[in-house]
Amino acid sequence: MSIFQSSKPFITPAPVIVLMTDFGLKDGFVGVMKGVILTITPNARFIDTTHQVEPQQVAQGAWLLSSHYRYFPAGTIFLCVVDPGVGSDRRAIAVHAGDYYFVGPDNGLFSLILAELPFYQAVELTEPAYRLASVSSTFHGRDIFAPAAAHIAAGLPLEKLGPELEVSSLRRLGNLQAIREGDEVEASVIHIDHFGNIITSIPARMVPEWTSSPRAAVEFPELGVCVTERRKTFALSADASISQHPFFLEDSSGYILIAVQNGDAASALGIRRGHRVHMQL
Amino acid sequence: MSIFQSSKPFITPAPVIVLMTDFGLKDGFVGVMKGVILTITPNARFIDTTHQVEPQQVAQGAWLLSSHYRYFPAGTIFLCVVDPGVGSDRRAIAVHAGDYYFVGPDNGLFSLILAELPFYQAVELTEPAYRLASVSSTFHGRDIFAPAAAHIAAGLPLEKLGPELEVSSLRRLGNLQAIREGDEVEASVIHIDHFGNIITSIPARMVPEWTSSPRAAVEFPELGVCVTERRKTFALSADASISQHPFFLEDSSGYILIAVQNGDAASALGIRRGHRVHMQL
Amino acid sequence: MSIFQSSKPFITPAPVIVLMTDFGLKDGFVGVMKGVILTITPNARFIDTTHQVEPQQVAQGAWLLSSHYRYFPAGTIFLCVVDPGVGSDRRAIAVHAGDYYFVGPDNGLFSLILAELPFYQAVELTEPAYRLASVSSTFHGRDIFAPAAAHIAAGLPLEKLGPELEVSSLRRLGNLQAIREGDEVEASVIHIDHFGNIITSIPARMVPEWTSSPRAAVEFPELGVCVTERRKTFALSADASISQHPFFLEDSSGYILIAVQNGDAASALGIRRGHRVHMQL
Repeated sequence: MSIFQSSKPFITPAPVIVLMTDFGLKDGFVGVMKGVILTITPNARFIDTTHQVEPQQVAQGAWLLSSHYRYFPAGTIFLCVVDPGVGSDRRAIAVHAGDYYFVGPDNGLFSLILAELPFYQAVELTEPAYRLASVSSTFHGRDIFAPAAAHIAAGLPLEKLGPELEVSSLRRLGNLQAIREGDEVEASVIHIDHFGNIITSIPARMVPEWTSSPRAAVEFPELGVCVTERRKTFALSADASISQHPFFLEDSSGYILIAVQNGDAASALGIRRGHRVHMQL
Repeated sequence: MSIFQSSKPFITPAPVIVLMTDFGLKDGFVGVMKGVILTITPNARFIDTTHQVEPQQVAQGAWLLSSHYRYFPAGTIFLCVVDPGVGSDRRAIAVHAGDYYFVGPDNGLFSLILAELPFYQAVELTEPAYRLASVSSTFHGRDIFAPAAAHIAAGLPLEKLGPELEVSSLRRLGNLQAIREGDEVEASVIHIDHFGNIITSIPARMVPEWTSSPRAAVEFPELGVCVTERRKTFALSADASISQHPFFLEDSSGYILIAVQNGDAASALGIRRGHRVHMQL
Repeated sequence: MSIFQSSKPFITPAPVIVLMTDFGLKDGFVGVMKGVILTITPNARFIDTTHQVEPQQVAQGAWLLSSHYRYFPAGTIFLCVVDPGVGSDRRAIAVHAGDYYFVGPDNGLFSLILAELPFYQAVELTEPAYRLASVSSTFHGRDIFAPAAAHIAAGLPLEKLGPELEVSSLRRLGNLQAIREGDEVEASVIHIDHFGNIITSIPARMVPEWTSSPRAAVEFPELGVCVTERRKTFALSADASISQHPFFLEDSSGYILIAVQNGDAASALGIRRGHRVHMQL
């Protein structure tokens, strides 16, 4: 659900399409997708979240999408392309879930969306009338996904895009979220942000004791690193004697995060996305 | 021509200006150009293709532009600044070719556009009324090109911007495209993309035998590397025994490209933009 | 003042919000702020200047903002987040100065704005009705600043956002601009641009003799480097015998800049942001 669902309805002057890919910004691939969309739906508007998902890292893309979508207006269309299987027989899909639409490959990129939002409808993007006339085997973002997003933005009912799919048939990734047993949580590093903060796959709501339990700690077993200090904010402590130890806190997206004060925790601790995380409560 | 030229006409709700530069994103130069445009043409809309053309690499910019433009709506204005000669006597120009307008320096950046599209009109941007009041010697993107693009977006006829130019007088770069003689093609690496794929200057339509000729191969003579495997797609082969050899295929932009499966071919093979390419058919 | 203030008034079809942060582009933080804004003010439009201010470098952000704002239409709202103190007791503010609005932390980011523009009004962003319902301790860009910018764009009077502040109470950074005594100027490197050009904190108008004084020179005392050649443009000299010596010129933003021809001066000379600069006239 949108975090804004309780506010009064509003008129969106033009449909909003949010783009997330692993395409980077140097080649113009994202701009070309927008050009295709404008040709079909001239009043479409665009917001980019990120085009720097690590190449072909579907799990990271799924987590980023899940941390973004709820801040956008109802009706927003998310065009998401992290697609190592482009040209194979993986399906191209569009999904209506919660107040949003999602367009992209059926490879697990929408795993968390499907876990978090009420599901309404999904279709396979097979209808040739809603693809570019010539479909390459290497750039479905341009040839299949962008046209589908454009037609949805123009008001085309989802079922026109191709046959409906059972929600149970949609691909989901395992191991995206932490597992808690008693006072032990097994998780992983899901993302390193621009500041070098280390984001774990542990939702803070899964570990409500994190602020109070005297022995709460976050460990990285592969590196022999254990973090025991906790804070409420990144800001400089007024107490100048506080050391530069790493600390953990609740990230703005609701996950447990490890930081160092005014520094790059991932570099300081030698941690990368995918490293295992153990939390003790 | 736009790939969409056969579709029915449509109403664009506001003019679209596409920006491509070598300015990068850290300094705000691109944002400032957009500010200048909005001050002149408040309803202009913007799409960025790339601002990471390698600094002052006009040939790379010409190739990128040529791979992007056809996906945008008729009437789109391309504002392109890769301009090592800013402040010298190189001309500032606007060109109407095919269904599009192009604004930028007359240094060869529009070489491929001029080769691929019917030419209608070109002018030199000399009219002071359509520049900023004070023109710097170092940032014509802001002071000359952005105002010109804004006025074109507002409907100003091209000839108001300055004297008309003969098409034959426009600067063109040599060596941008491959040369075929018999079964031999001489070319170069024109671009390395975000994924490390190596894009050659060989249009696939120049070498229609690439999929079938038993001895087709792409060589990098400076490095002693020869690629003989070919594929139709980047996707993982179902046959897990297939090795990690590099392979070539037709890129989504229609050029011959060398890749490795789920990896960075340019790093793996030590190849950079500008390296020579020899193709045998 | 806008450089366009003398032109005739125009109708902006939708409010323009310009975003500048140190968030980078990989995490989607900037996209999420835009989503929040569109939910409140659906017809808002966005321009990004830069999201690559160095992490938590408030002085660099202040300089970049000062070099950008004057190129935007009157009425533009600048949403600026370089905020090492997020979660501390530093104030969140909105400022009306010149023809513009500025929203961000009260940590000196608006120092140059306040020095350059007539001040009209400032408020502290305390009113809960104009924040997100739940305010995190780590992402005020999303929870406080974006909603404030959105409400200003929708026409809300500034004083609705919270109590008015005296201009004298707003935080200002020292040492942002050069100091001249006689023929000596003490300054610092305020920014290194995408091309490796070195921008000093010396406004060219402070040193009008720079083009003519026979002994004018720019020194980097920490590195023992002295630059004595001056030019009017980056363009290749027609005189091929001219060496690759570094030179200084007036940047497009009006500051003294050091460059090398078609190269990266900062790397060539080993200079970083913050290094001291001494100019002799």
